[in-house]
Amino acid sequence: MSFDLDPRLEHDTTPVAELPLSRVVLMNDARFPWLILVPHIVGLTEMHDLPPAEIMQLTKEATTVSRILQKLTDAHKMNIGALGNVVSQLHVHVIARFEGDAAWPAPVWGVGESEPYEDAALADLIENIRAELELAFDA
Amino acid sequence: MSFDLDPRLEHDTTPVAELPLSRVVLMNDARFPWLILVPHIVGLTEMHDLPPAEIMQLTKEATTVSRILQKLTDAHKMNIGALGNVVSQLHVHVIARFEGDAAWPAPVWGVGESEPYEDAALADLIENIRAELELAFDA
Repeated sequence: MSFDLDPRLEHDTTPVAELPLSRVVLMNDARFPWLILVPHIVGLTEMHDLPPAEIMQLTKEATTVSRILQKLTDAHKMNIGALGNVVSQLHVHVIARFEGDAAWPAPVWGVGESEPYEDAALADLIENIRAELELAFDA
Repeated sequence: MSFDLDPRLEHDTTPVAELPLSRVVLMNDARFPWLILVPHIVGLTEMHDLPPAEIMQLTKEATTVSRILQKLTDAHKMNIGALGNVVSQLHVHVIARFEGDAAWPAPVWGVGESEPYEDAALADLIENIRAELELAFDA
């Protein structure tokens, strides 16, 4: 089987970058700067079922994305999580949180309705994330 | 400063084990088999701010705990997350989820009221977790 994004992830996100192990996508929700890493691995649902080297690579990619997204957004707190109760394809959420955001201090999942980005804001955010990811992974 | 558990974590949990990097505690909530890893590190709130070796060790410990807890509980899905919006002391949740559990398929945080374990069930669960952790980390 080839790697395909789960249809719900595909519908809810915009592609940002391909890292060595993961595809990085941005949630189409302007309320929260929210990236998702989806390892290019077919059929796995639990992080602990990855081979150890891939667990470490995924962690490196997720923590790098977290560091970059906090730097770009000046977020108060980063939330990182691998849940998969609804979409079983293994994926890791990296979400920038702010005191007073639409879900604070609760988790973001399932809270209210997503709000679309304005086109220019979306393009700027993705461009900035790509530039930082290129620095982090091509250096 | 010496390492102390945040008072809210201390109040809501029961100690289980000390791993090389983290203290493992069990949430006092019989609705969800739910462990929390708290690295023995003072003053950090973001996983991405740990030195790389500690990021990898924490990941090894969290994924090992996840594998063990899924095995012991036969959980349908494991949830792993580092949020810290309420308790800023860096900690990683590892939660065994079941279709039809008290929050399914939503995340567990902030859902309803916790339910106490019966003493015997709590003692059995902790004993089983400790036995598996000793096998995994002393081998």
